Amino acid sequence: HPWVVNQWAWQMYGRYTQELGVYAKEEAARLRDGGGLRRSTSVRSRSAELLEYEKDPCAKCHAQKWMYGGLNSNMLLQYLAWVTYPVVLITFSAGFTQILAPQAVGSGIPEMKTILRGVVLKEYLTFKTFVAKVIGLTCALGSGMPLGKEGPFVHVASLCAALLSKFMAALFGGIYMNELRNTEMLSAACAVGVGCCFAAPIGGVLFSIEVTSTFFAVRNYWRGFFAATFSAFIFRVLAVWNQDEETITALFKTRFRLDFPFDLQELPAFAILGIACGFGGALFVYLNRLIVECMRKQKTINKFLLRKRLVFPAMVTLIISTLTFPPGFGQFMAGQLTQHESLVALLDNRTWSRQGVAEEFDYISHSHAWKHPQVNVFITLIFFIVMKFWMSAVATTMPVPCGAFMPVFLIGAAFGRLVGETMAVMFPDGIHADGSVYPIVPGGYAVVGAAALSGAVTHTVSTAVIVFELTGQISHILPVMIAVILANAVAQSLQPSLYDSIIRIKKLPYLPELGMGHHEKYNIRVEDIMVRDVRYITLSSSYRDVQEVLLIGQLKTLALVESTDSMILLGSIERSQLQSLLSLQLGPSRRLDHLRRHAKDNDTHTLDTHTHLSNLGNMDNPLSPPCTHTHSTSTSARHGVRFVVSVAEVSRTHARVMRVLNPLPQIAEWEEQQLDEPVDFNNCKIDPAPFQLVERTSLHKTHTIFSLLGLDHAYVTSTGRLVGVVSLRELRKAIEGSVTVTGVKVRPPLASFRDSGNNTTNVSEVTELHKLWNRHRGLSLPRDPTPVKNICEAHCN
Amino acid sequence: HPWVVNQWAWQMYGRYTQELGVYAKEEAARLRDGGGLRRSTSVRSRSAELLEYEKDPCAKCHAQKWMYGGLNSNMLLQYLAWVTYPVVLITFSAGFTQILAPQAVGSGIPEMKTILRGVVLKEYLTFKTFVAKVIGLTCALGSGMPLGKEGPFVHVASLCAALLSKFMAALFGGIYMNELRNTEMLSAACAVGVGCCFAAPIGGVLFSIEVTSTFFAVRNYWRGFFAATFSAFIFRVLAVWNQDEETITALFKTRFRLDFPFDLQELPAFAILGIACGFGGALFVYLNRLIVECMRKQKTINKFLLRKRLVFPAMVTLIISTLTFPPGFGQFMAGQLTQHESLVALLDNRTWSRQGVAEEFDYISHSHAWKHPQVNVFITLIFFIVMKFWMSAVATTMPVPCGAFMPVFLIGAAFGRLVGETMAVMFPDGIHADGSVYPIVPGGYAVVGAAALSGAVTHTVSTAVIVFELTGQISHILPVMIAVILANAVAQSLQPSLYDSIIRIKKLPYLPELGMGHHEKYNIRVEDIMVRDVRYITLSSSYRDVQEVLLIGQLKTLALVESTDSMILLGSIERSQLQSLLSLQLGPSRRLDHLRRHAKDNDTHTLDTHTHLSNLGNMDNPLSPPCTHTHSTSTSARHGVRFVVSVAEVSRTHARVMRVLNPLPQIAEWEEQQLDEPVDFNNCKIDPAPFQLVERTSLHKTHTIFSLLGLDHAYVTSTGRLVGVVSLRELRKAIEGSVTVTGVKVRPPLASFRDSGNNTTNVSEVTELHKLWNRHRGLSLPRDPTPVKNICEAHCN
Repeated sequence: HPWVVNQWAWQMYGRYTQELGVYAKEEAARLRDGGGLRRSTSVRSRSAELLEYEKDPCAKCHAQKWMYGGLNSNMLLQYLAWVTYPVVLITFSAGFTQILAPQAVGSGIPEMKTILRGVVLKEYLTFKTFVAKVIGLTCALGSGMPLGKEGPFVHVASLCAALLSKFMAALFGGIYMNELRNTEMLSAACAVGVGCCFAAPIGGVLFSIEVTSTFFAVRNYWRGFFAATFSAFIFRVLAVWNQDEETITALFKTRFRLDFPFDLQELPAFAILGIACGFGGALFVYLNRLIVECMRKQKTINKFLLRKRLVFPAMVTLIISTLTFPPGFGQFMAGQLTQHESLVALLDNRTWSRQGVAEEFDYISHSHAWKHPQVNVFITLIFFIVMKFWMSAVATTMPVPCGAFMPVFLIGAAFGRLVGETMAVMFPDGIHADGSVYPIVPGGYAVVGAAALSGAVTHTVSTAVIVFELTGQISHILPVMIAVILANAVAQSLQPSLYDSIIRIKKLPYLPELGMGHHEKYNIRVEDIMVRDVRYITLSSSYRDVQEVLLIGQLKTLALVESTDSMILLGSIERSQLQSLLSLQLGPSRRLDHLRRHAKDNDTHTLDTHTHLSNLGNMDNPLSPPCTHTHSTSTSARHGVRFVVSVAEVSRTHARVMRVLNPLPQIAEWEEQQLDEPVDFNNCKIDPAPFQLVERTSLHKTHTIFSLLGLDHAYVTSTGRLVGVVSLRELRKAIEGSVTVTGVKVRPPLASFRDSGNNTTNVSEVTELHKLWNRHRGLSLPRDPTPVKNICEAHCN
Repeated sequence: HPWVVNQWAWQMYGRYTQELGVYAKEEAARLRDGGGLRRSTSVRSRSAELLEYEKDPCAKCHAQKWMYGGLNSNMLLQYLAWVTYPVVLITFSAGFTQILAPQAVGSGIPEMKTILRGVVLKEYLTFKTFVAKVIGLTCALGSGMPLGKEGPFVHVASLCAALLSKFMAALFGGIYMNELRNTEMLSAACAVGVGCCFAAPIGGVLFSIEVTSTFFAVRNYWRGFFAATFSAFIFRVLAVWNQDEETITALFKTRFRLDFPFDLQELPAFAILGIACGFGGALFVYLNRLIVECMRKQKTINKFLLRKRLVFPAMVTLIISTLTFPPGFGQFMAGQLTQHESLVALLDNRTWSRQGVAEEFDYISHSHAWKHPQVNVFITLIFFIVMKFWMSAVATTMPVPCGAFMPVFLIGAAFGRLVGETMAVMFPDGIHADGSVYPIVPGGYAVVGAAALSGAVTHTVSTAVIVFELTGQISHILPVMIAVILANAVAQSLQPSLYDSIIRIKKLPYLPELGMGHHEKYNIRVEDIMVRDVRYITLSSSYRDVQEVLLIGQLKTLALVESTDSMILLGSIERSQLQSLLSLQLGPSRRLDHLRRHAKDNDTHTLDTHTHLSNLGNMDNPLSPPCTHTHSTSTSARHGVRFVVSVAEVSRTHARVMRVLNPLPQIAEWEEQQLDEPVDFNNCKIDPAPFQLVERTSLHKTHTIFSLLGLDHAYVTSTGRLVGVVSLRELRKAIEGSVTVTGVKVRPPLASFRDSGNNTTNVSEVTELHKLWNRHRGLSLPRDPTPVKNICEAHCN
């Protein structure tokens, strides 16, 4: 009954798209037309999938397979059923995310890394993003594409934490208002995200630390453990309550022998596996970036994709699902298995190559899929690895909420299994010399491979811990650790981690690492990179100056200096503080006072004035109809007191006041007077100790301070005088410049001057006095290097 | 043959005490007299114990038991043999450590925590300490006292790293000279120490991070893993080579069932176990501190102990070994088992209370010790726990190299086993409801208890990871995590961690944590705690000033200001730089120049001068006999060039020069002239950007910056003028003051003034302008609060 399906599809779409506008409706209509060939499935089971997602992320895949299984009469129908399902889901996911919150696209870990670094990416932590991410992710995972969920889980958990923080702050205030506390919440949330994705609390905490932090406060450590433990607990308890499991156990439980897990002589094989995974991981990151960059560079493709945003994911899904179609290519790569099933099969503790895959598979039927009547199990594995490798690299570039960890993990497991099976064939009786026969366990190799490849892609060591928790066995700790460390060593020397790569692609405001061991070379000082044109206000600034500064810049805080001449930095003032100062000065209450006083003076204008007054009083609700009755001034005054104004509002108010009061020229005059008055800072909060650097601070030191303290900007002072400001942006530019071309890009005249000055000594942190002296005498830096050089030479000779 | 034992004891002592002086010899003689009753054991096996220590830390205990077993004829002889052995070993360990390097006493983790914080404790990382620690620890562990080895292992590994760094720096220079690199090495070494103590690489890394760091650079993370993995590998490979194990497995391998490790309904029991362990851990830390403080306060005890340093360890050992004597009290507490054997027995996967301990113990005979013919196994366990608890707390205060982790771990395991056995008695058929019978595994409770108690004592969560690696099973992850987190929550709210407690007892220069959530209350600024009397030199300083400054202060760096009037901070100069400036100015080469010039002027004094010149030339070897022949000035000049002088040497040289050259008044005069000359800073390295704070920086911010950047001191400037310096010491005082009495102790007049000034707003990070303004106008802070208050009030009204 195609009608039922359509009905359901329509319902599902209708449920979410009511507020989504025209675009989604068009898409839905298009899909409805395309979905006509599908056969009926239980509407109820489909709807329940969304809810039961937590228990088994692949419930959808079961439905797909079930649908596919029911159509064994007709190959074409089978194919269409197999293909349409993922295409619809991915297209819906992409469209839904695109419309509701494009920030929900992708992994989320790079964004969380940036946010935890201290950069505010506000739109990434909104309720809209939450809805888009959860629903988009559910659909994307349900499609059966090689997509992961650990990154999105981290994002979703962080969204929960951010929304919870907001909620608690609104409800209780106090401690929840603290900015620092919010960061701690987010940091713990990241651990929760990974923890409940794999039911791996310890690995989750460590992975999230490795992936998101540069410097980690050990103080926060136990919070992460606490949260992650409970998330993992709830996650696994659901399986018990759902009667899937008898008690809480590992997600992918292995049953390797405990008494003799591996022989010492197998270690070289594990090491080679680790190194190979290192190269594979680097290749994956490179491939992933290559695809994105290719699409960006190819202008025709780019244009087309920008216009038809849903074509790309639909196309990719179509290709991938066509290639995995079980009667087609899929038969050579266990195409009918979901990621979960494949992993269970790969971690199996039997040896496929010896026993033959098809034999005695009573309780895990999935392994059957790896056995092809004509083709060797090795061919199947190699085919699986190669196909999944590029498929995963392509699939993770689709604009849907998705991660890459799980696909990579799976590929690693398959590669490990391949190595293990090869070893088993080479040493059918095991390697152990002493009489007793301990055969090789290829499943152990699969575990090692999975940890090594995912470690290589993400540049983390904690994947080792994740596999222990995931499999419930720690017997292979040594091979896993060795392989993961080797894989990391290889991958880190070849490519950035996948998340850093995405940060670069997305151009997120993240501070890159300074190249290790090279920092002595960076002959750059803060003065070379700082912005000299600082916005500031002085003690004698007028309100007009404040207004101008507020309207021009976008900085969160503004410097307060003593006077334009001395430029001595007194502190910094938050933008909001200045805004409230301005609104106080120009606010309706003072305005009313003035008008009232004015009205007293010339009593003839009373009525006029009162009409204007009432207009003013209603100004906080611009949509209300102009009120025509005159009401008492006391009410208006009360209105005025409640008047809370932002800058935009102030200027808008200002404009409207001008319009309203234009007939009264004395008001405009009054306003001009008000703006010319010097600012009264008495009711204003001033941070008396904003972060200051001296101009001679080296780039390396600045970088360390910025990353350690999570600074956004710092003022540069010279003997107490404000000479510049350096923000994350300048610092990033400087570091990227110096990382790629060793300081050439950002070399200002002064840097080269320093080079010529002293060549024998290490000048990274010390400088010679005469320069200090010259600099200090001159009080401002000479912009032209030549005279300075002359002075220097004169001094030296 | 008592003679053989004596001979051996003498040999052993003789080997190490040759250079140890009279004290050790006296002790050895005393012990030799006391050791006459012991029976002969193989000298060779005893000597080998020291070497085989790595393979089995309890080889000595075996020897002790063997000795004891061979004496079954006479109870008194048995007792004496049982007691003398540990007393001799502990006394030797204490004496040896005391004489060679008292820094080797104790755990080492508190010291490493302090060193990694950035404070240089040089004598803790010398070769002498290394020798003392290794030998002292070997003897202490061999004694069979309830002492641990993880802290000393951390120290030994750090010592290795520090010595290796020094060696590499001397050999290759370059990267190994880097201070930062040394810290990274030490940080990795700590991980190695824990890692090879338990063969737990992951747990080792995490434990060392938790225990030693406040902020951790994730960059260094993999180094720790790398080092710890290889250390664990080597450690376990030794067991394989020694034929103890067939392959690399866990140290205390458990054999719990994999299919149903525990039931959900057992979780409350695990939680209660965790909470109880939290209280127990806090009690242990308290008890340990109490013992030390009691001994310190009791003046008569203290005096006696200071005079006879070896009496205390000998006495403690005597009492403890008497109480564990197997035919005595020892029979109720499995006294004949070593720590290792006890732990193996406690983690056993059979239920003692049901099966009866004595039944069918074929492969682990140690469990037999827990079965007493008359007494219940519960009584034995309780007796064991109570006795071991206070014994461990007392034993770890002995002045020998020892840790407390292992004893605490053992007590925790025993307590867990007790709870587990109780559960097994209460639910003989297991708790699981569904027909099938899964009995409770008390061994699992032992694992949980061990992790929880050791976690509570050390305030770490990573003991959970350590037990997984130690037992080779991760099946109990959830109960372990829950118990550890609860134990931490309880213990952290009651007592500091054992290591922080020792830091306080030893008064190590470690920066304590700021109380969480209270920092808004600390109304303290840097200006309130800084030292105003800063040592500085000015651009116009004479060499005499430099000499004075160097002779008075002990600071590593000195501030350079423009002039005494302006006090504008230009940079900081290292002490060594100033020393070399001074030695250049007064050094022999210039002196010789002067003398030569002088000699040219009045040729009559040539011989005299040359004699003095040769004296000067030999001055770098003060012990050489005065040389009487005149040698060429060129040789002297060469001598002079090689003359590298430290301050002490400079002043010594100065004094000797004065003495030697006194007959030549023109030399003394020349010297005075030289000292009065202004310093030429041109050849001097100046750090142009020393770390600066403004005086209004809050205590909280200062603390954060100090702990993040690992600062030792920072200059406090006001509009570029140096007004003070704040070092770790001041900061520590301020924090300790505010932590204990909420800011009363360190409240200077200004802090209370700030309180009365603005009471409604949060003043932690912001201040009002008029204060800034006043301050800036006055250019120095008014010391008396009253006038400022008046100004403020005048301003406000």
